[in-house]
Amino acid sequence: MSASFSFRLIKTDGPARRGVMVTPHGRVETPAFMPVGTQGTVKGLTPEVVRDTGTQIVLGNTYHLMLRPGAERIAALGGLHRFMNWPGPILTDSGGFQVMSLSALRKLSAQGVTFRSHLDGSLHHLSPERAIEIQALLGADISMQLDECLRLPAPSAEIARAMRLSLAWAERSKRAFAAHARAGHALFGIVQGGDDLALRAESARVLADMDFDGYAIGGLAVGEPQATMLKVVAETAPLLPAERPRYLMGVGTPHDLLEAVARGIDLFDCVLPTRNGRHGLAFTRHGAINLANARHAADPRPLDEGSAHPAARSYSRAYLHHLVKANEMLGAVLLSTINLAYYQQLMAGMRAAIEAGGFAEFRARTMAEWERGDIPPR
Amino acid sequence: MSASFSFRLIKTDGPARRGVMVTPHGRVETPAFMPVGTQGTVKGLTPEVVRDTGTQIVLGNTYHLMLRPGAERIAALGGLHRFMNWPGPILTDSGGFQVMSLSALRKLSAQGVTFRSHLDGSLHHLSPERAIEIQALLGADISMQLDECLRLPAPSAEIARAMRLSLAWAERSKRAFAAHARAGHALFGIVQGGDDLALRAESARVLADMDFDGYAIGGLAVGEPQATMLKVVAETAPLLPAERPRYLMGVGTPHDLLEAVARGIDLFDCVLPTRNGRHGLAFTRHGAINLANARHAADPRPLDEGSAHPAARSYSRAYLHHLVKANEMLGAVLLSTINLAYYQQLMAGMRAAIEAGGFAEFRARTMAEWERGDIPPR
Repeated sequence: MSASFSFRLIKTDGPARRGVMVTPHGRVETPAFMPVGTQGTVKGLTPEVVRDTGTQIVLGNTYHLMLRPGAERIAALGGLHRFMNWPGPILTDSGGFQVMSLSALRKLSAQGVTFRSHLDGSLHHLSPERAIEIQALLGADISMQLDECLRLPAPSAEIARAMRLSLAWAERSKRAFAAHARAGHALFGIVQGGDDLALRAESARVLADMDFDGYAIGGLAVGEPQATMLKVVAETAPLLPAERPRYLMGVGTPHDLLEAVARGIDLFDCVLPTRNGRHGLAFTRHGAINLANARHAADPRPLDEGSAHPAARSYSRAYLHHLVKANEMLGAVLLSTINLAYYQQLMAGMRAAIEAGGFAEFRARTMAEWERGDIPPR
Repeated sequence: MSASFSFRLIKTDGPARRGVMVTPHGRVETPAFMPVGTQGTVKGLTPEVVRDTGTQIVLGNTYHLMLRPGAERIAALGGLHRFMNWPGPILTDSGGFQVMSLSALRKLSAQGVTFRSHLDGSLHHLSPERAIEIQALLGADISMQLDECLRLPAPSAEIARAMRLSLAWAERSKRAFAAHARAGHALFGIVQGGDDLALRAESARVLADMDFDGYAIGGLAVGEPQATMLKVVAETAPLLPAERPRYLMGVGTPHDLLEAVARGIDLFDCVLPTRNGRHGLAFTRHGAINLANARHAADPRPLDEGSAHPAARSYSRAYLHHLVKANEMLGAVLLSTINLAYYQQLMAGMRAAIEAGGFAEFRARTMAEWERGDIPPR
């Protein structure tokens, strides 16, 4: 609980980076994937199960937790780590993204955003300062600045306005974070600028001058084609300080992760492995497999007999198909587990490949193996 | 996989019995509680979690499994143990009870019962012989005869008719079971007779003469008051062969279990710990606790800091309340786990008390401790 936040690059292989983040609640080997613990829980999974997938850090959603059970409530109960019984590192988002996507009647001003809860219609306000305060109450190891995130496509002027507002909020977030003085905790700034590379460069440059503990690329995976996302990542990542971690928010598929690591990203979060698991879709070394499909009904083979995780080896596809068709909770539990284990296995594979200087070969081999599944990697 | 079924009484303490059942898939210390694995899964829980609650044997539902994925399908996949990845003993019911409660358009004759699936309306037939065949296909360690189970109250003549039909089916089940010749597997007969003690005695006497591997008391927990159930159990159990296990079907609350063991029962199954767990109700040493209640919202205490199971110690009531209110799957998972662990802890406590000759004292102390919970023990 006493280590200061730090990030150390161990090895690079082209733009791909192998590093270690140290946080007050432990180490994170990067590139790393964070499962999303939306409402104080990675859906359906105990912390032990999450840990046993190879997960080292989870993400908590400020928007959900501020509305229920409330940040002050969680603080009074000893913070989010104790609340959800997760002893490892936690990164929290600022709440901004979900205010935009989930709440009703939101009103944005330079001051912040006022909105009504999607749960009960109650009125709430989120400013850069309040977002930092909430994350401090939750006890996050890594906090995120409040930003404004647009859907794409969006008009250029609108993208520029939101990017500059996010920069102003970055400055205010940094001051507020310093005032909370939680020793060793980290604050990340967020690059905005939509699909406009010049705006992205401006955002990255100004944020870098503010000297954050880490840098996120936000406002992607919001409706744009994958090629656009990867282009923005490829152009933006090199503009960020090399000695700080780089986090691509809300991304993505296994293919997205592989391609983004190839472009210099260190950290990811996404609901895909758990959400798709709840809907019967498995991610494996051999691609994505839709277990609702009748062709699995009599298949005695496990999803991946070579997986390091027992859940991928111990249950037949026929059984998983049965659970999905019968809408059994255990189907969601097992497929969420199997998917997270695959994501973490993929990250571990990327880390080992970068260390060995063989990332390009690993990437080619991994993509070739995916072609054997139901669903093309893109 | 090779042990023959056997039952051995270790100790009695008044009518209460401490024994050991040996099955082809392992030992069961009695009195024992069986979680219900309705559709080939104890809802929401992996086999490892089920085992770690102290569970030694689970129940499988013939009705559900014959309809989906089908008994022949499960046999082709290596049987129910392999299908659900549960290596321990499995008892299967005959399907009769759920045909009566779930299916549509059922037609009962001396031959058997014809019914339509509640899933897709397809037509199915269950006879004593087919029920045994299905259970053999599933690979059950302990099979149950097909019987007719009435809701109570019911007219005397109707109870007598159903009891005599069940006796005839017991005879046919025994012949069919012998024909399948699965070495070491067991078949239990089922005492019927509703709340009529004379009919119960007749049923028990005729079944005992048929020499089953074990005896169930069926047709209880079907709408009658607890006192009626316990009266039937108290009068019927002593009429069954002492050297064979006695199973009270579909029972019950912790209080039911305590009172039925006090009257000579060795084996139970019930959906209560898992179903109530899914609805936010926890069973603990200190009685039942409704976690949806707002008074738990800020309570940092675990459900039972003295529990042998970590799930009852590691999560605050405030967190469990939050999960229940947010309708999070993990709430159902944790409360099902905690409830099963409590049921198994209660059974282990009864076993130890009988061994020590202190069952009456254990029973009084356990009931006094329940009074501290939200919900009276009855």
